[in-house]
This record gives sequence, structure tokens and C-alpha cells, in this order.
Amino acid sequence: MPPLKSWLEIDPKSHFSIHNIPLGIISTASSSQPRPAAAIGDYALDLQAFAAGNGFSKLSIIQPHQALFSQSTLNDFAALGRPIHRVFREYIQSILLSDGPFPDVLQQNQDLQKSALIPLSQCKLHLPMQIGDYTDFYAGLNHAYNAGCLFRTPSTALQPNYKHLPVGYHGRASSIVVSGTPVRRPNGQILLDPTAEPKQPVLSPSRKLDIELELGCFVCTPNEQGVPVSIEEAEERLFGVVLLNDWSARDIQAWEYVPLGPFLAKSFATTISPWVVLMDALEPFKTAGIESETEVLPYLQEKDRKSRYAIDLKFSLTPAGEGQDRTTLTKTSAKELLFSFPQMLAHHTVGGCPMKTGDLMGSGTISGTERGEFGSLLELTEGGKREVELNGGQKRRFLEDGDVAVLEGVCGEEGGLVGFGECVGRIERAVEMKF
Amino acid sequence: MPPLKSWLEIDPKSHFSIHNIPLGIISTASSSQPRPAAAIGDYALDLQAFAAGNGFSKLSIIQPHQALFSQSTLNDFAALGRPIHRVFREYIQSILLSDGPFPDVLQQNQDLQKSALIPLSQCKLHLPMQIGDYTDFYAGLNHAYNAGCLFRTPSTALQPNYKHLPVGYHGRASSIVVSGTPVRRPNGQILLDPTAEPKQPVLSPSRKLDIELELGCFVCTPNEQGVPVSIEEAEERLFGVVLLNDWSARDIQAWEYVPLGPFLAKSFATTISPWVVLMDALEPFKTAGIESETEVLPYLQEKDRKSRYAIDLKFSLTPAGEGQDRTTLTKTSAKELLFSFPQMLAHHTVGGCPMKTGDLMGSGTISGTERGEFGSLLELTEGGKREVELNGGQKRRFLEDGDVAVLEGVCGEEGGLVGFGECVGRIERAVEMKF
Repeated sequence: MPPLKSWLEIDPKSHFSIHNIPLGIISTASSSQPRPAAAIGDYALDLQAFAAGNGFSKLSIIQPHQALFSQSTLNDFAALGRPIHRVFREYIQSILLSDGPFPDVLQQNQDLQKSALIPLSQCKLHLPMQIGDYTDFYAGLNHAYNAGCLFRTPSTALQPNYKHLPVGYHGRASSIVVSGTPVRRPNGQILLDPTAEPKQPVLSPSRKLDIELELGCFVCTPNEQGVPVSIEEAEERLFGVVLLNDWSARDIQAWEYVPLGPFLAKSFATTISPWVVLMDALEPFKTAGIESETEVLPYLQEKDRKSRYAIDLKFSLTPAGEGQDRTTLTKTSAKELLFSFPQMLAHHTVGGCPMKTGDLMGSGTISGTERGEFGSLLELTEGGKREVELNGGQKRRFLEDGDVAVLEGVCGEEGGLVGFGECVGRIERAVEMKF
Repeated sequence: MPPLKSWLEIDPKSHFSIHNIPLGIISTASSSQPRPAAAIGDYALDLQAFAAGNGFSKLSIIQPHQALFSQSTLNDFAALGRPIHRVFREYIQSILLSDGPFPDVLQQNQDLQKSALIPLSQCKLHLPMQIGDYTDFYAGLNHAYNAGCLFRTPSTALQPNYKHLPVGYHGRASSIVVSGTPVRRPNGQILLDPTAEPKQPVLSPSRKLDIELELGCFVCTPNEQGVPVSIEEAEERLFGVVLLNDWSARDIQAWEYVPLGPFLAKSFATTISPWVVLMDALEPFKTAGIESETEVLPYLQEKDRKSRYAIDLKFSLTPAGEGQDRTTLTKTSAKELLFSFPQMLAHHTVGGCPMKTGDLMGSGTISGTERGEFGSLLELTEGGKREVELNGGQKRRFLEDGDVAVLEGVCGEEGGLVGFGECVGRIERAVEMKF
């Protein structure tokens, strides 16, 4: 199928083709109040301005909800549910289509174009959702295996539970930030010599600061406490997907995480990309995930095994300093997940845990099987034992101050790309502790 | 010091003496809008009605903030900070004192008494705070040791990090409920025979449902992301304390928790007591905690080691059925904590994690050293190997459907008690899964 065509000029390499229509929260110099927008090509369609300019005149189902487009998060829009998101997205596509059914709404309306189409370069992006709870899963099979080999042995790398359930843990919602927010290197307890006895930690800036290449998925439709979401219902309760960098301080993690799991090693910052790609936009890119010889229990069995996404993922790094190149260190795919988001949601709620609109589920780090496909420096450098080389000659085991880490994700073909843009963070020097 | 006297008749056994003045959120049959109140004896002082009836006429510092007393959570009141909480509490005490300075405010004002003093028996209690993030620590040394012995050996019971830092993990904020809310037994993956190979889980209602006797502490003053809270500042950022029952499904936990920690075993429900006992009310009951031979790093060193509280704690159980007795299974003290709440807050933020107003920190399970002092059935029954006997002859290894678990906590002497009331939950039968 050839890509749809818009009357708006859109670079064929844009992640925000007319096939996408991701939603985010913007503000501008002239209007500092954060408000919803859709990304299209090099523009944000300011939905507050669009609604105010009668842009939804041809979509009566949205009209009672137009106040949502003056809110500073997408939560209430998300809570309307998938059927509304679908008609909303199709409507926005329709007013952007060449030869679309409603040329008078935007294409022939210079005033509305002027008020509602804002160059992305003029937009400040904000966290798209108010996130009540954040759960991070561990469904990247190759990452779990690689990390397990580093900490244990190949034969014990994956725990016995790993293929039976999506292993996950509660993350820290308050430290989630939007792409572009600087990330301060955390201080924490680390062991300078992990083999010395007795073990004596010091307080130090982390020396093993790492990225984790993940996807995040927002819940739109909540479930009551005590009421599980079945695997059949689960997909319809998901709002959309973002890139997620689960920054990790490996040395803090190694000392603190036994027996209750990662804590401060992960809770200084988690960065997400600003544009939420709706589940419907990803629908054409569904694919099978990793095959497993383990049959999961019925509450996790999907009718259609094609519930992973063929999203091409990339991690690159730019060191501090003028004229430094960006080096792509990792290319992999979101299909490298053992469990899907619907499976994660069904599992998360099987005991009755209530999920609210805006809750976020991280996929876990996504890695391929080969060097150059690994979603963390931990794996790329074998736990810091070897270095990776950057364009320009610098070498890295872990992140240095000033490094800019960039995640990217995109599906489809030029002219019809459905992408996430970038998820970016620059490392700032740690706070100097007074003792 | 003899207890202060009030003109209001207060049972000397009441947890809510004039020395306490805890805050909660109530609603009543005649006014269903949740609103703040203070507990005093058998009454709730409805702060919305009190403010409306000019009750704060003698406290000018509160007057600009009176709209807070029409809100449905205490968050904005908490955000005013400790100095305001202090004068607020002292003022409420002063209008309740016999021979107090302001008899005209309430004592001689029958109309205001009628509108603002509501029998507790007529109040419905709600969650006192909107909880953004919930962290559960593990600072009960004896519990950690007892649990470690059950899972490992006495010599390896405590991990090497245990005495160096308050071990903790992120909990699930959305499943926190107020005392009295029924708790549905969770379904989850369990191993019927944990020793059989290969390990094959089944989906089942938990067969090892347990309580955990904890305190919870709310944060009032937030810190910015990247900016640690020093140990000196930490106490002033705490709002107040509640009882906390960290319900735990031991069989789900045993299978899921490696390597990332407890997840669904804890996130079906966490119950807190409804009345927040302000930090200032607990001040007279400060005491030293457990001595440790390990010197903690400077960022965790408190000037005054008296930062634990002499709160007497109790866990009791009432089985389902008419005329069943309540059996006290556990008596212990909140001084059995290796780390204090200020230490937990200083540690939590050392890497820059932002804490927000209303965030909750659980202490971890509090146990003494002897049988009869253990804060969980796991310890009382040695992991289910022995039974505890209830008044009336029933026996328990873990909780059965219909069981009512009650936590209590109180400081001080009769006539001047500072207590938490009860933290109650009744176990409901698991949802029947259709597959």
C-alpha cells in the first residue's frame, strides 16, 4: 500500500507522517500554558487552538470533550478509551489528506493554519501524561540472558520463572522526565572494590552510569482494585507507546539490590520521548515476538501471537564538546520481547492490582543477540570489561559527564513512517556532597 | 508531667487524647463530600465546619489557608510545612483545653460544637493523602533476620548491605487503601511443589496470605529532582505517621521475586490507618533505636540517635463467624527499627530522587526478638511449619477467608495517649478465574 498523501508538505523521512498522528503536550513562547497537540511533519497541530477555531466541526463525537484540549496532560483524553482515540486519529488524518473529505476545516482555512500549525522548532515539549504508577518489566529476553551471564553463568542466566511470567518491579513515577531534560549523575553507596572483605561502601558519584533502551506503554482504561483484566480485554486498555530510557547506575545497583531489587540505581531519572504513538498507529507493524518453548498459563495466552511490533530501535551517543559526532552504538528491534504489553497488563492485574489512566509500563531493556544490538552499555562493554569506540576516537565503558544519549524508534517505509522522534538526555555532573 | 485536661469528656483509654490531634479525611451521611478533620476522643472535629464557623478567628496565620479545609486530601495542608502544622496543632489543643485561652471559640459556642464535633461512629474515613509514590523499606532488623533465616541460614540471613543502608524498594501507590476496606485474596502464579523439577507454576488464589506490621510516614516538603535532602533537614520534611499493613502473598512472592524483588505479591492491597499522627505529637516518645556495630556513612549519621519512637504495636486476628474472639498474636515496639524515617528520607534522596508532598515511606515489618513479638505470620509460624492457636481453638498458618487482621499502635500513658486507632482489613474470597 503506497503511503497516504497530505496537502501539508511533509519530509518523507519525518517520523510524523500522516500515518502516525502521535499526541503530546506543548507550550510556546507566546502561550506558556501546556496543552495537547498532535505532531505532523515539522509541525505541532495545537489542539486547543484547533478546537477553538472550530476544527472539530465535522466530528460531533469529540465536541462534548473539547475542554480536554485545554488540559496540561493527556490523561482525560486517554480515559475516553480506544474507540474515541481511533475516530479522533482518523479525523485528524482526514483533515490532513490531499483530496480529503473536509478541505474547508484546515486545508482551505488560512486563519486556522496560522493559529494551530506551529513549527516543532518553536514548541517546548512536556511530559505527556500524569503518571500515577510506573512499572518496569524485564521482557527483553536477550538482555535478561546477557545480564544473567554477566552476573551468573549461561546455564543459570535466566531464572526458572523467566519464561512463565513477565518479570517486573515497581519503578519510581516521580522521577520520570521528558526527553531533553538534563540527567544529573547520582551519588550513592558503591563498593570501590567489590571483592574486598568486609564490604565497606563509600558515598560517590556513580562510576557506572548506563542507559537502558526500552519502550513504555501507557494505560488508558483503568480497572477496579480486585478485578483482573483478561488477556482478551488488555489491548483495548492501552493508550500508546513511547521510547523509554531507564537510566541505571550499575555500581549503586550491584550493592543495593539484594534482596528487594533495584531502587536508587534507577530512581534518579527515567526519560521518555514526548510524543505518544497511539496503539492504532502501530497496528500495521504488528509481528510475532520471540518464540518460547515454554507454554504460558492460559491467562497469558494470546489468541494472536502477533502482538509485538516491528519497531527499529537505535541508541547513539554524542560526547561533550564542539563538533563531536553522534555514534550509533546499537540497532535492534522491539520484536525482541518475550512478552507483549497486553500480556504485561493481564499479568499486572491478575492479582487485582488497580491500573489507572496514565500508568506506565516499561518493556524492559531490548537487545538483539549480537554485539551492536545490545540495549545497554553493560552488555556492549561486558560489564565494563571492554571499551566501545566512538567516532572521533573517544572510548567509553560507561557514560561520562556531558555525554548525550539518544534513543530513536521508527516503523514503516519512507513517506509513511510511524516514529517516536528522539528520547534524549545529557549527563550533568553529580551534586557535590558536603560530607 | 500529668496529662493535659480538656473540657470535652475524653475516655482516658482513647488514642485520641488532647496530646494527639491526628488529622484525617471524613465524610458523613449528611455531607458526603470528603473533608479534613482532627480526631479528639470519640469525636471528629470537622475542620471545614470549624473554619466556616469562624473557629480559626484566633489564629491569623491559618486564615489565608482556610480553603484547604474543604479539600478531599491533606496534601495541600501538609505542603504548608512543619512550622504551620505545629501552630495549627497547638491551637486546636488550646481551644480544647480546660481553662484554655480561647473558651469562646468552641467551649462556649454551642452552635459550633453542634456543627463541627461529629461522633466518630458517624464518620466514614477516607485515604488521608493522595499518594504519588510509595516506598517500602526493610528497616525492621529482627524481621529481616528472621526472614533471612527462613530463606537462607542464620549466618547469611542479613545481606552485607543491610546495616549500611536502609534497604527498600518501590511499592504500588494505586493499591493503598484506608483501614476497613475489604482485601481480596489475590490470584497469582504459585508453585504447588517448589522442589519439583522442572518448575511448573499454576494460577491459584494465594495459599500463604500474610500481614506485615509496619509504620508508614508521609512526606510533607518536597525536594527537587537532583537535590538531596540532608539528614539534618530530613525530619522537618516529614508530615506524620500511620499504621501500615503490607499484605503479602508469600507463595506468589517466592516464585516471582527473583531477581527484581516483590511485585504482585504485595501490590493487590496495602492498608493504612486513617488518622495521620503528626510528627510533633510523637516528639515526646522519641527513643533510641537498635544499636548497630556498623558505622553508617556520614550522610546517614544523625546528631541525635533518639529518632525512633516508643510506639507499642499489636497485631490481632478475628476469624469469620458470629461471636468469634479477637486474639492478640503479636506485641512489639516501633523502636525495633535499625533506621529512622529521617535516615530513610536522606537515603531515598541521596541520588536525587524527587519526593513529593504525600509520598509514603513504609518502615518495613517490625518484629521483636521473641515469639509473640513477630510482625508477620511468616515468622510466627516459621514459614507455615507450625500453627498459631486462636482463642476459641481455631489454628492458623496463614490468613483464611473472612479473617479480620487488626494492627494497633499507641504511645504514652492513660489519659494522655497518642495513638493511631486501628488498621483493619478483612480477607475476601479470591476472584474466580474463568480459566
